Amino acid sequence: MKILFLGDVVGNLGMKMIEQYLPILKRDYKPQLTIVNGENATSFGRGINKKVYKGIMNAGADVITLGNHAWNNEEIFEFIDDTKKLVRPLNFPGQDTPGNGYTIININGKKVAVINLQGRIFMDPIDDPFRMVNDLVDDLKSQVDSIFVDFHAETTSEKQVMAMYLDGKISALVGTHTHVQTNDNRILKNGTAFLTDAGMCGPIDGVLGMKYNNIIHRFLTQRPTRFEVEENGNGIVSGCIIDINNDTGKAKSINTIMISPDHPYQG
Amino acid sequence: MKILFLGDVVGNLGMKMIEQYLPILKRDYKPQLTIVNGENATSFGRGINKKVYKGIMNAGADVITLGNHAWNNEEIFEFIDDTKKLVRPLNFPGQDTPGNGYTIININGKKVAVINLQGRIFMDPIDDPFRMVNDLVDDLKSQVDSIFVDFHAETTSEKQVMAMYLDGKISALVGTHTHVQTNDNRILKNGTAFLTDAGMCGPIDGVLGMKYNNIIHRFLTQRPTRFEVEENGNGIVSGCIIDINNDTGKAKSINTIMISPDHPYQG
Amino acid sequence: MKILFLGDVVGNLGMKMIEQYLPILKRDYKPQLTIVNGENATSFGRGINKKVYKGIMNAGADVITLGNHAWNNEEIFEFIDDTKKLVRPLNFPGQDTPGNGYTIININGKKVAVINLQGRIFMDPIDDPFRMVNDLVDDLKSQVDSIFVDFHAETTSEKQVMAMYLDGKISALVGTHTHVQTNDNRILKNGTAFLTDAGMCGPIDGVLGMKYNNIIHRFLTQRPTRFEVEENGNGIVSGCIIDINNDTGKAKSINTIMISPDHPYQG
Amino acid sequence: MKILFLGDVVGNLGMKMIEQYLPILKRDYKPQLTIVNGENATSFGRGINKKVYKGIMNAGADVITLGNHAWNNEEIFEFIDDTKKLVRPLNFPGQDTPGNGYTIININGKKVAVINLQGRIFMDPIDDPFRMVNDLVDDLKSQVDSIFVDFHAETTSEKQVMAMYLDGKISALVGTHTHVQTNDNRILKNGTAFLTDAGMCGPIDGVLGMKYNNIIHRFLTQRPTRFEVEENGNGIVSGCIIDINNDTGKAKSINTIMISPDHPYQG
Ligand SMILES: [Fe+2]
Ligand SMILES: [Fe+2]
Ligand SMILES: [Fe+2]
Ligand SMILES: [Fe+2]
Ligand SMILES: [Fe+2]
Ligand SMILES: [Fe+2]
Ligand SMILES: [Fe+2]
Ligand SMILES: [Fe+2]
Repeated sequence: MKILFLGDVVGNLGMKMIEQYLPILKRDYKPQLTIVNGENATSFGRGINKKVYKGIMNAGADVITLGNHAWNNEEIFEFIDDTKKLVRPLNFPGQDTPGNGYTIININGKKVAVINLQGRIFMDPIDDPFRMVNDLVDDLKSQVDSIFVDFHAETTSEKQVMAMYLDGKISALVGTHTHVQTNDNRILKNGTAFLTDAGMCGPIDGVLGMKYNNIIHRFLTQRPTRFEVEENGNGIVSGCIIDINNDTGKAKSINTIMISPDHPYQG
Repeated sequence: MKILFLGDVVGNLGMKMIEQYLPILKRDYKPQLTIVNGENATSFGRGINKKVYKGIMNAGADVITLGNHAWNNEEIFEFIDDTKKLVRPLNFPGQDTPGNGYTIININGKKVAVINLQGRIFMDPIDDPFRMVNDLVDDLKSQVDSIFVDFHAETTSEKQVMAMYLDGKISALVGTHTHVQTNDNRILKNGTAFLTDAGMCGPIDGVLGMKYNNIIHRFLTQRPTRFEVEENGNGIVSGCIIDINNDTGKAKSINTIMISPDHPYQG
Repeated sequence: MKILFLGDVVGNLGMKMIEQYLPILKRDYKPQLTIVNGENATSFGRGINKKVYKGIMNAGADVITLGNHAWNNEEIFEFIDDTKKLVRPLNFPGQDTPGNGYTIININGKKVAVINLQGRIFMDPIDDPFRMVNDLVDDLKSQVDSIFVDFHAETTSEKQVMAMYLDGKISALVGTHTHVQTNDNRILKNGTAFLTDAGMCGPIDGVLGMKYNNIIHRFLTQRPTRFEVEENGNGIVSGCIIDINNDTGKAKSINTIMISPDHPYQG
Repeated sequence: MKILFLGDVVGNLGMKMIEQYLPILKRDYKPQLTIVNGENATSFGRGINKKVYKGIMNAGADVITLGNHAWNNEEIFEFIDDTKKLVRPLNFPGQDTPGNGYTIININGKKVAVINLQGRIFMDPIDDPFRMVNDLVDDLKSQVDSIFVDFHAETTSEKQVMAMYLDGKISALVGTHTHVQTNDNRILKNGTAFLTDAGMCGPIDGVLGMKYNNIIHRFLTQRPTRFEVEENGNGIVSGCIIDINNDTGKAKSINTIMISPDHPYQG
């Protein structure tokens, strides 16, 4: 079974990129499951609303994951509880957090769990991602054939240690949040596919998708600046394609996907 | 002119890897200048001492850069002022910081400045890297033909914005510190080569080069743990090769280098 | 010479408190110089505008200091350069930061410098407060009779070490930013008066002046919450009164001022 | 019922201070329960060992609380599970953390629970202190007559919001960790006594108890420095005395205790 994953879609240009390329990628890679991180998909680059939710699904996603910006657009509260396709980080605290931290998808008689998880190093102090995901994975083990985790975290250390912690218990762990794809796709010792960060889908001429002029003003003055999504210039599509052994749930391969001006799509 | 750069060498296994591969890389890529980040090269994975300094130079480095771990082995104070080949981050505060933040290397009549710079987001509050490097680059402009910056920083945002800030003023900016190579090598609009992180040289089976068992214990208990360098298992070599136009100082190309079990060296 | 200092004025209730009590405090303590921190004085609890600037001056302040919220209301850019009575943190970076980091006030032939300084531990990475204030104090030494520093910082360690660093070079260092008055007013060994935090002027029933309901929602859910100033309930006035030897510039005494429901003003 | 609480005892001088003054304070205030925070009581200023544990108990403590430095001296693991008098922060993660987060003390037929809790803002990402303490307090409600919480946390906001969150459910919440006593002792609306920070017991001439020279070197150079406890100069004793209504468990009063060169003990 193949899973196609695309990292954080940023703003209007990010939406345009996945509308253009996701159908092509699906045609060529033929994934049974397509997952897209949508935490920055609104035109403000923060949060998700009905419009972009539908846009990402229409472009070809089966499941949308989120991250620390999940709640930045309040419209999410209107529809997150009505859909099993939109997954927010598992480890937000308490019983009251809207939505779910995972979903189970049926694919030709096989069940795949998609978990969204958030880190804590240099991020908000939410619940322990290690114990929570470990408990959930133990619960899901008998119910599903394969488990995919989008671990939305800042540091390479938290992502690496989480991947090794879950190695052999899940099929794949792919990081998001830094908006820059890493070049370390590999299968860990016990069969889990790992990529520290999938990168983003959006404007390449900004800083993580936001306009350079605003960001540099902030860095140079340390005074507050309104950040705006870069609307101009070229876009990129970043992600990965994972192949999983249907019988064992172990990963057979993980390869990065990068479409950019330097890497035009060649199918 | 070609510059070969290798990211943070970690511990004994990192040293073995560069002793084995640096001569081969130099033979094959024929760089005029070889730079290696050595901030984790001692057997403890922190700091630098005379022995590993000599080891890295003997393996083929022309210049060694450092980072936030520069001062972790006090032996550095005995020799940093005697060598122009060991560069510490430029923006440590005050007039009294030992060593230098840059060095100028002569290569067949061409002068190349190598600058080491450190970020501040989620790191110690040292001096403003933006203003300091900008002033230095303006000073160096008339003295050198080419400028290379190793920007040792945590976040992708600080690295991206710095690269765009210096775009057109320097030949290349390569990030270090996260120990994971990024897959975003490219030439920016005004001719500066950029790679968010070069990655590390060292043990692949640990977490950023440190033993997994100690790290996971820390993450699970939040109690203090002594971190130790992973000595066993496979090693990797991570870096990049940059080609610079001798006449303009603009970059012609930047390509990543990755030697690992999945990517055995093929020359 | 006596200096009256009041900590961060928060919102409308903070304004009401100083309008009511500052005249009384001045009548009773007879300070030659009155300084008020106004970084939270707008009705939003962030930044300063013309209206509250005038309100604080009319209530009896001679100088207004600021802090990390200095720039949160953009109206400040319209008037900060026109007044020598409004002082922003000295160590914002670069030559371009509007306003000044200190001012000199003439009092019956004596000159007093009022410096505003901001810390960096758990705060934004602005310029080095230690070197900047030390250089400024050395410059001012021959021009003024007395120096007062409002050090706006988060941690007790940064405030204590700064006070000891400047001990004997300035008359007084008083901290702000935590909104809670400390009980450690004292004269340091070399004659500098010190108080780790002056506390705030504003609503006592909120959390640092902001509505409890919003804050607890944020702590419990870790989702974004709009913080609002508490408008109801009782208010407090927090600050200190410092007596300085006119001849030596050394402090003779520093005493806290606290007006609250538990400590009604008794003159 | 009266509870005497003393803040973080720091190093040898801190030990001397409580050996000298704790008996006198007990003689004069006649508390039924005496609690001392001992997280910095070893001669290194970090952690606790058998010797200082016994020393604090011999000086008159009934219960010793801890904080983020609880685990810095590994000797603690040898005896924490054998004593019910040594309480570590409740919200360290998992089932495996040695020791307990609270203890119940019998006093003339009345039961008092003493809880140690640790914050997360600018501290390590341990478990949610809000939900954990709320659940525990609900459990303890029917078992004990009174609950005291030592909340070891960095920021005034986390401490204030926690106190208001527990207001009416516990008798008192006193903060520790900043080593500086605050001047905001008060009874909250629903009867809980509150003090943001009790302050420390130890050397006044250092920075939070550590030698100034080492600390300023770190701040000025941003290079690593070994911190050492200040052994010389004067000491202080900081804490508070709380009076609780035996029938209701509500606080009747909370007053700070401060013994220092400026405030010699007067009984
Ligand atoms: Fe994102
Ligand atoms: Fe994110
Ligand atoms: Fe490193
Ligand atoms: Fe580093
Ligand atoms: Fe404030
Ligand atoms: Fe502030
Ligand atoms: Fe402490
Ligand atoms: Fe502490």
